[in-house]
Amino acid sequence: MHPTVVLTRLGLRLAGRSMVRAAGPITRGGGPYETSPHESAGHLTRRHFSGRKKTFKSQLWQNPGSQPAMGDSSNKKLKMASHDADIKRFDEVFQQLVTELIDEDAKNPEISDAMVRFRKVLEYTCPGGKRNRGLSVITSYRYLVTSDQLTEENIHTAMVVGWCIEWLQAFFLVLDDIMDQSQTRRGQPCWYRVEDVGNMAINDACYVESCIYKLLRRFCRGQPYYVDLLELFQGTTYKTIVGQSLDLITSPDGKVNLSNFTEERYNAIVKYKTAFYSFHLPVAAAMYMAGITSKESHDNAKTILLEMGRFFQIQDDYLDCYGDPAVTGKVGTDVEENKCSWLVVQALRLVNKEQRELLQENYGQNDAAKVAMVKQLYQELRLQDEFWKFEENSYSQLMQLINASHQDLPKDMFTEFAWKIYKRQK
Amino acid sequence: MHPTVVLTRLGLRLAGRSMVRAAGPITRGGGPYETSPHESAGHLTRRHFSGRKKTFKSQLWQNPGSQPAMGDSSNKKLKMASHDADIKRFDEVFQQLVTELIDEDAKNPEISDAMVRFRKVLEYTCPGGKRNRGLSVITSYRYLVTSDQLTEENIHTAMVVGWCIEWLQAFFLVLDDIMDQSQTRRGQPCWYRVEDVGNMAINDACYVESCIYKLLRRFCRGQPYYVDLLELFQGTTYKTIVGQSLDLITSPDGKVNLSNFTEERYNAIVKYKTAFYSFHLPVAAAMYMAGITSKESHDNAKTILLEMGRFFQIQDDYLDCYGDPAVTGKVGTDVEENKCSWLVVQALRLVNKEQRELLQENYGQNDAAKVAMVKQLYQELRLQDEFWKFEENSYSQLMQLINASHQDLPKDMFTEFAWKIYKRQK
Repeated sequence: MHPTVVLTRLGLRLAGRSMVRAAGPITRGGGPYETSPHESAGHLTRRHFSGRKKTFKSQLWQNPGSQPAMGDSSNKKLKMASHDADIKRFDEVFQQLVTELIDEDAKNPEISDAMVRFRKVLEYTCPGGKRNRGLSVITSYRYLVTSDQLTEENIHTAMVVGWCIEWLQAFFLVLDDIMDQSQTRRGQPCWYRVEDVGNMAINDACYVESCIYKLLRRFCRGQPYYVDLLELFQGTTYKTIVGQSLDLITSPDGKVNLSNFTEERYNAIVKYKTAFYSFHLPVAAAMYMAGITSKESHDNAKTILLEMGRFFQIQDDYLDCYGDPAVTGKVGTDVEENKCSWLVVQALRLVNKEQRELLQENYGQNDAAKVAMVKQLYQELRLQDEFWKFEENSYSQLMQLINASHQDLPKDMFTEFAWKIYKRQK
Repeated sequence: MHPTVVLTRLGLRLAGRSMVRAAGPITRGGGPYETSPHESAGHLTRRHFSGRKKTFKSQLWQNPGSQPAMGDSSNKKLKMASHDADIKRFDEVFQQLVTELIDEDAKNPEISDAMVRFRKVLEYTCPGGKRNRGLSVITSYRYLVTSDQLTEENIHTAMVVGWCIEWLQAFFLVLDDIMDQSQTRRGQPCWYRVEDVGNMAINDACYVESCIYKLLRRFCRGQPYYVDLLELFQGTTYKTIVGQSLDLITSPDGKVNLSNFTEERYNAIVKYKTAFYSFHLPVAAAMYMAGITSKESHDNAKTILLEMGRFFQIQDDYLDCYGDPAVTGKVGTDVEENKCSWLVVQALRLVNKEQRELLQENYGQNDAAKVAMVKQLYQELRLQDEFWKFEENSYSQLMQLINASHQDLPKDMFTEFAWKIYKRQK
């Protein structure tokens, strides 16, 4: 069943599809000439949704419940400002932050040479993505505060925190690319593959991470939420590292062990490696900045956001196999790379003894004939149908969660967040 | 001039010598079969100070000024407890911390497999050194607080913070060993060289770093010094990364550029890469825990501790060339590895045109004849004499700094700290 069919079958469903492409295995850097899932997102959606942008956006904004986020619709309009203006300002803030961080230390002649290098590191590794994680801090913050809290200073601080998330991602990606021996990232060679960089990229990545805490200190120190943010960033870093380890343990280089690929393991990898930092972190940061500290609200938001993360990662795994390369701009390589993909997990649930042996013999090898055998098995097992069933259940579950969310949490914030993370055009 | 001569020439000087061996280029992992400077420390001093342990220790304890640290000598005796007891307890705390950190997450079936791995990571990479940085938190803390503050709980917390420094070092060392392609560390293969580890060691190192903040959160949250410690650890991490970058820029693989090797660059590398985390961090952490927050006291302590760091690193560089391998337990390789050593910096200050050309042709190459040429040049330039001159000046400068230190800072704390970092027997 082709994705476009779903549009006619399940209304908003295709919005989910269009969004998912960008979710990607963002930290699951892959094989040779992998391009960032971010880049390919636009292609898929531009083709599939030609002329439908407005409808798609309206659907998301109306859903679920369409209640005003603040209980004050004039405020809401004022507060939402222009998304494009936010993006423009966000990019300007990046340049300001780089300049400020680097220039300050570059004045110290002891370390000015290191700063020449680190300026390059920041400018090469942090921009170039869709900045959806970072931007969603600002969007969420707009939903969560009253108009009088939306000062220029507070918006600027939200943008700084947004960039801290982008920098955290850059730290993960630079190191993951080394560990996975990936070739390209965001349409350019991975940082470690740039001339004269090599393993010094390890130290460069650590520099990017440590800048997060310099920025938080400079811009958030003295705020009541300062310690909450420090702990949130540190805790999220810890969880992402645990997730990366689970992924590496589950899919070791050159060793196929299908019994590793359980539903439980799959869910744990997605949650720890991707969902916490991509989905939970931006909204939780905005909540702390808006003064929301209750455990109940935070637990509630976390449940919704982690479910979103799982939903979209599964769609991404589906598209790795069933997406049209002419549309997505990349050829999926999850089978070759022995990935613990949602598809192989479902296959293992459905196979008989012979089919399992076939999978064992053909999975995780860079051999086109073997990959074709695996994909043929997926067809026999009707994994596309399994995916549609999953999608239907998961989507309605997510909407139920959002509809039942805590009073502190504007429902539109979650749909807006999804739209930001998975929006279609770069 | 052989080190033992110095004992007769300059009283306490040899104490400095004995101490220095352990200072080592601790994060400057070197070439094939490098052993840790920590391990070789014992050999040098056991031979040189046979039968003199008590005298040496007394000298240090009496110096400078021999004033009681607390103004209450009975308190002091009580407070100092037994160093051996502290070591024993410190090691027990390590096991407790590993058990607690790992067992908690191992109960979560989602991530229990990662915890099996991370227990190995912690047990392989964190112990095995002399733990002097970690232990000096406790020793400094004992000097800085009143007896009634020395509760079991406070001592335990100081030990936890001590281990945080050891774990920070483990994070640096695991990554430095990958970047330097070192072979051994603390008498065993570097972690990345262990079977089935490889580049996954990058993620493992990040796990070790992130544990620091889990520990600080668990044991120091709610304390008035919690944020100070978070910022101190983050700031020190940043500085060490800057120092590592300077070192990598200054001595790139296979490219000898003598004009990089300036006195200023040398001082900057030593200060940023080693002195901040090895010398400043443990004492500054103890100061915050003891309630000392004044900028003046902290600046004063930093000046003394960074000078100590420089003093001992220079001695280490000297011994890389002039130490007796039969005594130090390792063959120095700074020349082969194109290190920005204090010796090459001094040589460049003293050379004529022809000598500089000789250095250019022979430095930084793994060729015994070329190394011998460089060392012959060092002899001609009388670098040993330069070292004795430096040592005399630097030592008296350090003692002046300590004698003039802020009233908040017990003078004995600094000498005790030096003794801990550079103590002779493992």
